[in-house]
Amino acid sequence: MSTSDNQLANKSQAWSALFSEPMSDLVKRYTASVGFDKRLWRADINGSLAHAEMLAAQGILSAEDHAAIQRGLNEIAAEIEAGQFDWKLDLEDVHLNIEARLTERVGIAGKRLHTGRSRNDQVATDVRLWLRGEIDEITGLLKALQSVMVEKAGQYADTILPGFTHLQVAQPVSFGHHLLAYVEMFARDAERMLDTRKRVNRLPLGAAALAGTSYPLDRERVARTLGMEGVCQNSLDAVSDRDFAIEFTSAATLVMLHISRLSEELILWMSQNFGFIALPDAFCTGSSIMPQKKNPDVPELARGKTGRVVGHLVGLVTLMKGQPLAYNKDNQEDKEPLFDTVDTLKDTLRIFADMLAGLTAKPEAMRAAALKGHATATDLADYLVKKGVAFRDAHEVVAHAVKTATAKGVDLAALSLDELKAFDARVEADVFDVLSLEGSLNARNVLGGTAPAQVRAQIARHRARLA
Amino acid sequence: MSTSDNQLANKSQAWSALFSEPMSDLVKRYTASVGFDKRLWRADINGSLAHAEMLAAQGILSAEDHAAIQRGLNEIAAEIEAGQFDWKLDLEDVHLNIEARLTERVGIAGKRLHTGRSRNDQVATDVRLWLRGEIDEITGLLKALQSVMVEKAGQYADTILPGFTHLQVAQPVSFGHHLLAYVEMFARDAERMLDTRKRVNRLPLGAAALAGTSYPLDRERVARTLGMEGVCQNSLDAVSDRDFAIEFTSAATLVMLHISRLSEELILWMSQNFGFIALPDAFCTGSSIMPQKKNPDVPELARGKTGRVVGHLVGLVTLMKGQPLAYNKDNQEDKEPLFDTVDTLKDTLRIFADMLAGLTAKPEAMRAAALKGHATATDLADYLVKKGVAFRDAHEVVAHAVKTATAKGVDLAALSLDELKAFDARVEADVFDVLSLEGSLNARNVLGGTAPAQVRAQIARHRARLA
Amino acid sequence: MSTSDNQLANKSQAWSALFSEPMSDLVKRYTASVGFDKRLWRADINGSLAHAEMLAAQGILSAEDHAAIQRGLNEIAAEIEAGQFDWKLDLEDVHLNIEARLTERVGIAGKRLHTGRSRNDQVATDVRLWLRGEIDEITGLLKALQSVMVEKAGQYADTILPGFTHLQVAQPVSFGHHLLAYVEMFARDAERMLDTRKRVNRLPLGAAALAGTSYPLDRERVARTLGMEGVCQNSLDAVSDRDFAIEFTSAATLVMLHISRLSEELILWMSQNFGFIALPDAFCTGSSIMPQKKNPDVPELARGKTGRVVGHLVGLVTLMKGQPLAYNKDNQEDKEPLFDTVDTLKDTLRIFADMLAGLTAKPEAMRAAALKGHATATDLADYLVKKGVAFRDAHEVVAHAVKTATAKGVDLAALSLDELKAFDARVEADVFDVLSLEGSLNARNVLGGTAPAQVRAQIARHRARLA
Amino acid sequence: MSTSDNQLANKSQAWSALFSEPMSDLVKRYTASVGFDKRLWRADINGSLAHAEMLAAQGILSAEDHAAIQRGLNEIAAEIEAGQFDWKLDLEDVHLNIEARLTERVGIAGKRLHTGRSRNDQVATDVRLWLRGEIDEITGLLKALQSVMVEKAGQYADTILPGFTHLQVAQPVSFGHHLLAYVEMFARDAERMLDTRKRVNRLPLGAAALAGTSYPLDRERVARTLGMEGVCQNSLDAVSDRDFAIEFTSAATLVMLHISRLSEELILWMSQNFGFIALPDAFCTGSSIMPQKKNPDVPELARGKTGRVVGHLVGLVTLMKGQPLAYNKDNQEDKEPLFDTVDTLKDTLRIFADMLAGLTAKPEAMRAAALKGHATATDLADYLVKKGVAFRDAHEVVAHAVKTATAKGVDLAALSLDELKAFDARVEADVFDVLSLEGSLNARNVLGGTAPAQVRAQIARHRARLA
Repeated sequence: MSTSDNQLANKSQAWSALFSEPMSDLVKRYTASVGFDKRLWRADINGSLAHAEMLAAQGILSAEDHAAIQRGLNEIAAEIEAGQFDWKLDLEDVHLNIEARLTERVGIAGKRLHTGRSRNDQVATDVRLWLRGEIDEITGLLKALQSVMVEKAGQYADTILPGFTHLQVAQPVSFGHHLLAYVEMFARDAERMLDTRKRVNRLPLGAAALAGTSYPLDRERVARTLGMEGVCQNSLDAVSDRDFAIEFTSAATLVMLHISRLSEELILWMSQNFGFIALPDAFCTGSSIMPQKKNPDVPELARGKTGRVVGHLVGLVTLMKGQPLAYNKDNQEDKEPLFDTVDTLKDTLRIFADMLAGLTAKPEAMRAAALKGHATATDLADYLVKKGVAFRDAHEVVAHAVKTATAKGVDLAALSLDELKAFDARVEADVFDVLSLEGSLNARNVLGGTAPAQVRAQIARHRARLA
Repeated sequence: MSTSDNQLANKSQAWSALFSEPMSDLVKRYTASVGFDKRLWRADINGSLAHAEMLAAQGILSAEDHAAIQRGLNEIAAEIEAGQFDWKLDLEDVHLNIEARLTERVGIAGKRLHTGRSRNDQVATDVRLWLRGEIDEITGLLKALQSVMVEKAGQYADTILPGFTHLQVAQPVSFGHHLLAYVEMFARDAERMLDTRKRVNRLPLGAAALAGTSYPLDRERVARTLGMEGVCQNSLDAVSDRDFAIEFTSAATLVMLHISRLSEELILWMSQNFGFIALPDAFCTGSSIMPQKKNPDVPELARGKTGRVVGHLVGLVTLMKGQPLAYNKDNQEDKEPLFDTVDTLKDTLRIFADMLAGLTAKPEAMRAAALKGHATATDLADYLVKKGVAFRDAHEVVAHAVKTATAKGVDLAALSLDELKAFDARVEADVFDVLSLEGSLNARNVLGGTAPAQVRAQIARHRARLA
Repeated sequence: MSTSDNQLANKSQAWSALFSEPMSDLVKRYTASVGFDKRLWRADINGSLAHAEMLAAQGILSAEDHAAIQRGLNEIAAEIEAGQFDWKLDLEDVHLNIEARLTERVGIAGKRLHTGRSRNDQVATDVRLWLRGEIDEITGLLKALQSVMVEKAGQYADTILPGFTHLQVAQPVSFGHHLLAYVEMFARDAERMLDTRKRVNRLPLGAAALAGTSYPLDRERVARTLGMEGVCQNSLDAVSDRDFAIEFTSAATLVMLHISRLSEELILWMSQNFGFIALPDAFCTGSSIMPQKKNPDVPELARGKTGRVVGHLVGLVTLMKGQPLAYNKDNQEDKEPLFDTVDTLKDTLRIFADMLAGLTAKPEAMRAAALKGHATATDLADYLVKKGVAFRDAHEVVAHAVKTATAKGVDLAALSLDELKAFDARVEADVFDVLSLEGSLNARNVLGGTAPAQVRAQIARHRARLA
Repeated sequence: MSTSDNQLANKSQAWSALFSEPMSDLVKRYTASVGFDKRLWRADINGSLAHAEMLAAQGILSAEDHAAIQRGLNEIAAEIEAGQFDWKLDLEDVHLNIEARLTERVGIAGKRLHTGRSRNDQVATDVRLWLRGEIDEITGLLKALQSVMVEKAGQYADTILPGFTHLQVAQPVSFGHHLLAYVEMFARDAERMLDTRKRVNRLPLGAAALAGTSYPLDRERVARTLGMEGVCQNSLDAVSDRDFAIEFTSAATLVMLHISRLSEELILWMSQNFGFIALPDAFCTGSSIMPQKKNPDVPELARGKTGRVVGHLVGLVTLMKGQPLAYNKDNQEDKEPLFDTVDTLKDTLRIFADMLAGLTAKPEAMRAAALKGHATATDLADYLVKKGVAFRDAHEVVAHAVKTATAKGVDLAALSLDELKAFDARVEADVFDVLSLEGSLNARNVLGGTAPAQVRAQIARHRARLA
């Protein structure tokens, strides 16, 4: 029998002998992935180059075929980079598009490239290679964002704003300290990205369709060529595992949760009732109807995009739930949520680093707010404890003092010594050292506390860590 | 002062006086929505036409201005349809793009169109108008799918396959009856779409930015013009409400759940170990490595796309959680999940109607499977009850008979009368009437039961309903 | 053979003949549902009474047996109400517990009750009956909450606070109007509950295990007895459908989203930087360390509980995804999320009605905040439009005026006539009528707008609706 | 003033001075957590012991007070273990319950224990200590499950079943190999648990309410005492971070996904149409109506419980979304999903280890199924490649052969040499070596492939790893 040279001219011909009916356009569109998976092209070509190199080293591919494949793939890479590659829906996905073009360019050698592999292990390899690169970029962006925030924290180590719990004024804190809380979060996010990377960076190639292959492949050689840390040890698992995508999306969800919490605060702080900060105009928008508006669009949108990434996580989990082994077509749906998660994360991290670099604090408004809620009440209680009162009793004494101050419409710190003495005779003039915002701040000089001395120590630690 | 005629030439100039810094390209890209919201163009233009008509009727707009606006919008509609409209990222969204173009075309009249409205009520109106149309299409597609399944059920009313519970053979059922189970589900889905439509089809326009407007608008006139069933009664709610999008996505999720359950069954039935059905080649694909494969890609992909829609639902819910009133930029993130939900749903319903029309059953394989699991054991128990045994006791008797049949490696129906009598002396020769698949099937002649007579009655009811 | 009278003394004996090995305690605990499904007991007994009544009417059950069953079930109901019923884990679920007790009490008649039904249709019936009752309670609670808010809105129809978009001061609104926005939301929620109720209130009983039954049941009679609106028309669908649970949980999610938005606002308004409202002490808590704190615990917790209900929705959807027909044991997992959703919803609605009844506004703080952000800028633009300026141009003029006012550190309304005239000569002394908060408010006298006249009209409408 | 000794007799008195109104019972119930957080009691006591030891070492607490606190806490631990502790709803949570009891027992020393800490850092510490212990248990259970599966794989290394892709017969695989795929998954799950543990095992204590404390605490000493790997470096982050709970629940979700995939397969394999395995009776249940049923309840329920854990993940993520710093009451909602996730995971892993130990394969049914779908077609293609045909051409040749075999109603392996030669003249008698199931299996002798030699090598590796 004769098999046509252009057998791959369209997808359905890749299995044509068995099929008596062509695909409808709707089915083609519904099942094709080339519209989105073409962004894997570089990983696909790199994976193919490594596979061909190994086939040649193992004597499965001749040197001539290997050379032809190398040349052809490099030319295709150039075509794609130049925007001259003609992606065909008929060829379903990035893999068949590139392979068909390779055969067009280099003839039968191109048909030999697929020896010992299947699209099942090929796509798993491509996604892992691509994601590894994206994780490295994201880790870099997380670092850059942390650096911006650390420097901003340095600028505002001595600036006091009210710390809130339950959005009620709780205790005075350093604005630098507050910013460093987010540095801790993003540092944990970077840790998680690295942990995920270990599990992404393993090689499925060689699992073939699901069972391994009868060719004497050297899978560890391919792993080394591609800079991977190990080889998937079970072929069924290798082609069906999408844990790495879920784990990554889960780590991305936590990044976005942190971004959403920071956004919530930026939006509050920009609100006229707080007025704690200004964001650069370049990150705000106005209104088509209200001429006075300057809206914190970027943090709002970022907060909104959190939902998007959470949705992708849920989508991926739902996708995998209850799937039997090994590969099922359902898995094709793993790519769009993963791609969109990566894009959202990278854009958001970049824009936040830029925006936060331009944030300016308004220390007077912060201080005024800190003086509103009896923020140093705990300090008075601690003062009494140091005078010998049990903590629970001191707490009760101060509650009475706060009640009195509230009734008078003043802050606790504005009561006179006599008034304070009335609550407990052990109060003396030095009480005002602890009732001031600065006194309160400096007193919290414990590891991780808000005292500017601690904040500066943390900044030094972060600078060294991020260097 | 002079204000430039081309003030809307780019978005940031819509509020330029207050802003001292231009937007960076990254911020523009991050905050712009025109890339996806341009698909709302027809709703946007229809909403504007209705608004202008009312402004004119109320004497807020002159007849000349009204005529100019009508002409301009119709020309713009033609441009867009012809693919000649130049969508500008700088103009952020579909609304400003169209409005800017209108002013270019008709001058100052274009600037008067925005009187008494804001983008906040405009976008809410556009999305509702657009979604109403999509719901109508989806309802039609649900109906078409039901019709296909009803006719298929008619074809297979007498074909017997094992009904499963816990994927264990339970009792024989009619394949037509089985298909009608899905008709019930899709009928409920259509009901839910109609219930949702009521709440979608209400007019936000006139809420302006958030508080209503000082122009004497006639909101009920606009609602009538647009075919809406009512007017949103509170301006703050009107601009911030996205319930309708969540409710729709939730209804869509249920459609996809039903599709995913049906898909799971199609995949099982196609598996060689069942071999109950064949799907047309046009809806299957082969393998790049295994030459014998014919895979049920469409149902697998549909099952996978369920995750996608569930993800969108979660994304939308997360988006709205904890947002204060009224409009926040987060809401811009409502569109992409909604659009993708609609697209996924429509494509899936269309493709399923086509695919199921081509489904063929393999009655022998179905019958063989039904004879494997003592499927008529319940019938034997019911037989004994009719002879005076209490149901719970009959159940126990039959369990013993099943144990014996299993030990002999035969189906319960293959035991001899003597063997059956040994379990209960009341068993007589007529027992074999109920032990046959047909006997069992016909016996379940209760409303909603699997007896072919009932199946045919249901088919008649559905045909009338769907006509 | 002899079948023991106490065959149901424990669950595994319900199918003992076939099983050669007892269940381990871990498996019993893992698979049993009686720990949570016993709360369905009343629905279970009511369903059994209706089933028995019909069996008797159809001549399937003797009058004596029927009387015995009635008596037995009523005695069991009394036992359960009195807390004297001994629920047994060994009997797995509420159904077997009650049936076993019935047989203990009334002998062989009890064994006849299960004729023509299965636990599959029985549990589906029980859950629907129970949920119908809960929906009715929830609808009542939604109504009560709306009534509280409508009355509170009446109290504050003329109280002005800043309306926000993007949490930036936008335009002045009536606090009554703001509260009514939530009344709209809860009214839609009640609509959705009623729509859901229609689909809950259909009878699965008679579907038996999955295929219907060979007994001549009168399903419509049972439906009438139980007050149900219809009969499930397909037995396979009847036992496997959990749409109604998902639809309900989705409607509940929207209620909680509205609660979470309101909570977010209550928390903001309680914060010292807003200081717009006070909540009664009974709904707040203090701090174990900070003596001055009064925290809005109830709204915070309610906002947090939103996550809980969203989680249940996702759990239920994930549960059903990809399940083949008909009943699978997975479905047992539908109950706990459903029960917890109902409990969370009812508690939250009750507590919010109580709490909001005790809310007091602080009009001075609201007014002061409304004067901070040039809230009447839109009114100035509208003023200019009425003088003949095109809206887009007027918008630009006002933006310049706002810039000047901001530079001077005053609100737009505090600029002098001369200063305003400098931006557009058409400004005259009557401009101050529209620049005042009251002027702005009263001007928005459009249907759904914030003018107190509109607010009062809406209150009247709501009162009539809720009466 | 006098402060009562029993100030903590109920919760609301912990801040009584400021509050003028008692909590209603509904509010108490709504806000109290003691009903579920009491399970943290041991972590709470251990944390308090470590805190007290440090306070004494730093000279903040006298030796007598320290001794009294130690004695009191140990007595309380004994009371709780003996079930004699009286948990009071009025005291809200586990912390206040234990502290109040301590003060009852040891007087004023008990009141001094809370020096330098707050419930905010205390609860964060408790949850972390508790979760660390649970992670260790779960890691052990994952190991046990892997061991069971490795041994089962050893038993079935040479047993052949069809490997599926798209649930279509693809290629023969070893049942041992198939089981090892899950071992890989559970091994990754254990890796993730360990990675999560690092981030769980850090000490928040010393962060106090949110800002640190003015007492000279030695936080690193407490961390060492409690076996923690580090100290949270920012007080605001320390009290508000719930990343660790989300990360754990995400890792748990992946475990449950793997369990759900395995369950899906067990259910399929138990179905009469597969008949590949038997599960022990102790893990199955029967039917109340169908006497012949033996249902795989445990895998079904486990598949269903996947939804539950996914729901908890979504609940936790939704909970944290958009929360401003630092502690908000919303966070109280973190516990129930976390507790239920841990319980579900532990029960499921335990029951699966037991159940799988009792699984028996039915090799004849597996072999029969493997002979149904031309499972060795790829081997024929590979054979042709080795004869010099390009892979893509060989694929096409075999597709034609499959078509012919299907038309004849036989497996590809049953075609005669002449028939095969007709497709390609290079086929010779040795082709039947590769067309047999064993031939195919043994040929896939590549690292990670299904050849029994590879399977045995993997088993050896796993045994060493798990030892």
